[in-house]
Amino acid sequence: MEIDIVKNEMKRYVIIGGGFGGLEIARRLVKLNVQVVLIDRNNYHQFQPLFYQVATAGLEPSSIIFPFRRNFQRKKNFHFRMAEVLSINSDEKFVQTSIGELHYDKLIIATGATNNFFGNNDIEKHAFAMKSIDESLQIRNRVLEQFEEALSLPAEEKPEHITIAIAGGGPTGVELAGTLAEMKKYILPKEYPELDFDQMRILLIEGAPRVLNAMNKKSSSKAKDYLKKMGVDVMVKTRVTGYDGTELSLDNGSIIRTKTLIWAAGIKGNYLDGIPEEARVRGNRIAVDHFNEIQGMKDVYAIGDVALMTSDDPAFPDGHPQLAQVAIQQGNRFYKNMKSHFKGREMTPFKYKNLGTMATVGRNKAVVELPRMKFYGFFAWLVWMVVHLRSILGVRNKFIVFLNWVWNYFTYNLSLRVIIKGKGK
Amino acid sequence: MEIDIVKNEMKRYVIIGGGFGGLEIARRLVKLNVQVVLIDRNNYHQFQPLFYQVATAGLEPSSIIFPFRRNFQRKKNFHFRMAEVLSINSDEKFVQTSIGELHYDKLIIATGATNNFFGNNDIEKHAFAMKSIDESLQIRNRVLEQFEEALSLPAEEKPEHITIAIAGGGPTGVELAGTLAEMKKYILPKEYPELDFDQMRILLIEGAPRVLNAMNKKSSSKAKDYLKKMGVDVMVKTRVTGYDGTELSLDNGSIIRTKTLIWAAGIKGNYLDGIPEEARVRGNRIAVDHFNEIQGMKDVYAIGDVALMTSDDPAFPDGHPQLAQVAIQQGNRFYKNMKSHFKGREMTPFKYKNLGTMATVGRNKAVVELPRMKFYGFFAWLVWMVVHLRSILGVRNKFIVFLNWVWNYFTYNLSLRVIIKGKGK
Repeated sequence: MEIDIVKNEMKRYVIIGGGFGGLEIARRLVKLNVQVVLIDRNNYHQFQPLFYQVATAGLEPSSIIFPFRRNFQRKKNFHFRMAEVLSINSDEKFVQTSIGELHYDKLIIATGATNNFFGNNDIEKHAFAMKSIDESLQIRNRVLEQFEEALSLPAEEKPEHITIAIAGGGPTGVELAGTLAEMKKYILPKEYPELDFDQMRILLIEGAPRVLNAMNKKSSSKAKDYLKKMGVDVMVKTRVTGYDGTELSLDNGSIIRTKTLIWAAGIKGNYLDGIPEEARVRGNRIAVDHFNEIQGMKDVYAIGDVALMTSDDPAFPDGHPQLAQVAIQQGNRFYKNMKSHFKGREMTPFKYKNLGTMATVGRNKAVVELPRMKFYGFFAWLVWMVVHLRSILGVRNKFIVFLNWVWNYFTYNLSLRVIIKGKGK
Repeated sequence: MEIDIVKNEMKRYVIIGGGFGGLEIARRLVKLNVQVVLIDRNNYHQFQPLFYQVATAGLEPSSIIFPFRRNFQRKKNFHFRMAEVLSINSDEKFVQTSIGELHYDKLIIATGATNNFFGNNDIEKHAFAMKSIDESLQIRNRVLEQFEEALSLPAEEKPEHITIAIAGGGPTGVELAGTLAEMKKYILPKEYPELDFDQMRILLIEGAPRVLNAMNKKSSSKAKDYLKKMGVDVMVKTRVTGYDGTELSLDNGSIIRTKTLIWAAGIKGNYLDGIPEEARVRGNRIAVDHFNEIQGMKDVYAIGDVALMTSDDPAFPDGHPQLAQVAIQQGNRFYKNMKSHFKGREMTPFKYKNLGTMATVGRNKAVVELPRMKFYGFFAWLVWMVVHLRSILGVRNKFIVFLNWVWNYFTYNLSLRVIIKGKGK
C-alpha cells in the first residue's frame, strides 16, 4: 500500500534518515519547489557528539534532541513519516517501509552508521553501545544501577559492579572515560559513602598504538596524559576478544572483571536491501561518486557516514572520515547541485573542507586541531564548548545545555542521576 | 539475608517510600541522632502535581524528579536502598525487600497510593494511568505516536487515533484536558497540517455531578466553563463501564471510539502484607491513630495517602484528603513528636491545617481556594505557578521549570515532543 502523501507536480525527494546529513538536505531542499519527504525511525534529530553527557547524567536527552516537525512548522512541501525503511526498489523507484511503499523521484540515503561488533555475538549481547539517545540512557541507567546493586553485595563482588570498561579510544571513548573519571572524583563518593572508590576502575581499551588515533600524535599523547592524571587505566595496542557479561578477555591474555562494558570500538554503515551488492564497500559503506550518487544506480544518493566517496583527494585516500562535518558539507553540496540542476547549470563535485577536529577529556581539558594550528587545555576546552553549543538545534536547547554546563562547572553536582525505565504498555 | 547497613547505637528508622510524606520525614529525622534508612523502588523523588506537564510534553521528567542521594550528600546517618518492599514482619521487627531483610526500631510506611481500576481488568489493561514519571512518559509517547500513526491510516480510522478520553474530573483530569486542548489549538495543527483537527475530540468523563468535586461549587463551574470554552467535551454524572482499547463504553449507553484512554478516576492505598487485616480500611488505606501509628501495631506508622486517620475534625469526617499537604504536615508532626519523645516530652496529636487547594486549567486560567477566599483566572494562575515552583526540589530544577513555562507562554512552542522508548538491555 502506498503511503498517503499528496502527489502534485513537484518532484518528490525522499530522504531516509534525519541525522546531520539528512537534516541538512531537508532544511535546504524545502526552500526549492520540490516535495521533501523525510523518513526516520525516531521523530527527532539526535545530536550525537553529546550522547556521552547524557550517558553520564550531565544532560537530559531532550536538550540534545529536537523533534523534526518542530523544525518544519508551516512548510507545506515538507512531510515527515516515522517508519523503518526495509528495502529499496530502484527499478520501480519506491522504498518499502514499515508503514507502506513510497515512490520517489530522487532518493537520498542518509542512514548513518551503527555499532560494529565485528561478528562477536557475545560482546553484542552483553556490551552497551552509544549510537542513539536510547542507548545513551541505557548506559546511564546501567551505571547507576550497578552502584545501587553493589551496596547489597558481598565485599568480593563489589569491585566488578563499580568497574567500567570502555572499548575504543576514539573521541567517544576518551570523552566517556574522562567524564566517568570526574564523576568518580567529585560526585560518587559523596553519594555512595558506603562504597570504597579505590575499587572502582575506569578502563579505556584501544587496539591502535594510541588513543584519538585519527588525530595528530601530539593530541593523542596530550589526551592520554590527561586521562592518566584523572585516574583512567589507558591500555593501547590491546583488543577485547570476548565478554560474557562479567569477564572481559583481552588479546594480551588478561581478564578484567566488570559488569559494564561500553562498546565504542567500531561502526559500520547502515546498508539497505536493494542497493547493488557491488556498491557495498569497506565498513558496510555505499560507494558513491563525487556527486554522492550511488555507483550503478540512478537518482539514488548516499551521504554522510553510510557513504564512501572514492575521493581523488590525496588527504583522504580511503575516503572521508565518518564525521558530522562531512555529512553536513555533503548535504549542502547536494542541495547546491540540485539547484544548479534545476537551473540547467553544471554541478560541482564535492570537496571536503576540513574545519578541524576536537575532543574534550574533562573540565578545562580538551584537544583541538584546526587546519593551521593545534592547541590544548583550557582554551581548547572553551573552543570545544562554543563549537558544540552553536551546533545544537534550537535556541532553548542551546540555552539549557549552556546552563547545565555552567551549573556543573561551579557545583560539580547536577541532579540528573535518575534511573528512568519507561516500560511501555 | 540481612541488608548490609552499619548497625550502631543509634535507633534505626526505616521509611518505605520517598514521596512527599516519606521524604519530609527523612529530611527532618536525619538531623536527630538516629539512623535513617529510606527505601524506594526508584532512586528519585517525584513531584506528582506536574506529571501532567510531562505527559503533555511541557516539561522534561528530570525537571520534576530529584535523586534522593543528591539530597542527603554527606549525611552519615542516612542510607538509601533502591528496592521493592514485599512484606512486614512486625513480631520480629523487620521488612522483607527484594534485596533482603532489614530490621528496624521504628518503621514508617509512606507508600502512597496507586491507580484504582475498581476491578475492571479490561480498563486496567488498555488504559494509561499517570501515577509515576514512567507512566507520564508513556502517555506522552502514546499521544504522539497516535498522531504519527494516524497519517498512514484510511480516513475513517483517523478520528479514533487522535481522540483522547480522560476518565476522572479531579485536578489531574482537569489539568490534563486543559493542556491537551491548548496543544490542539496552538501546536498540533502547525506540526500535522495533513490532519483535520476538527476530528480530534478531548473528552473529560466524571462520575460526580461536577468536575473538581472536592472543591467549592463555584470553582467547579468556573473550571467547567474554562474547559468548555477551550473545546473540551465535559461529561458529568457519567461513568466509564468498559474499554477494549478502541471502544469506550459509558454508563449512559453511548460508545466513544478512542485509542487513548487516560485513567485518573480513582486511587487506592499501597497496602503492604503483614499489616493486620483489621487496619485495612476504605480505599485500601491503613487506619492510624492521631500519632500516625497503625492501629494494632507497635512502632509501625503510616503517613500520607496510604494512611487514614480517624479524625475528630468535623471538617474531615471521612479522614483527610489524599493530598501532598496532608502528607507533608503529617511527616513534620511525626518528626516533632519523635523529638519530643527523645526529650521525654508529651507528643501532640496531628491536626491538619488546610492551606488551600488549587487547580490550573490552561494559560491564565486557574481556580484557587484559600481558607478565607477564592479567586479565579489570571491571578489564580500566577499563584498556582508560584506555589508549585516553590515546592519543586532543587534550585536548578526550579529554574528550568520556570524557564520552560516562560518560554512556552510566549512561544506556545516547546521542543519536547519526542518519543523516547528506552528498550532496556
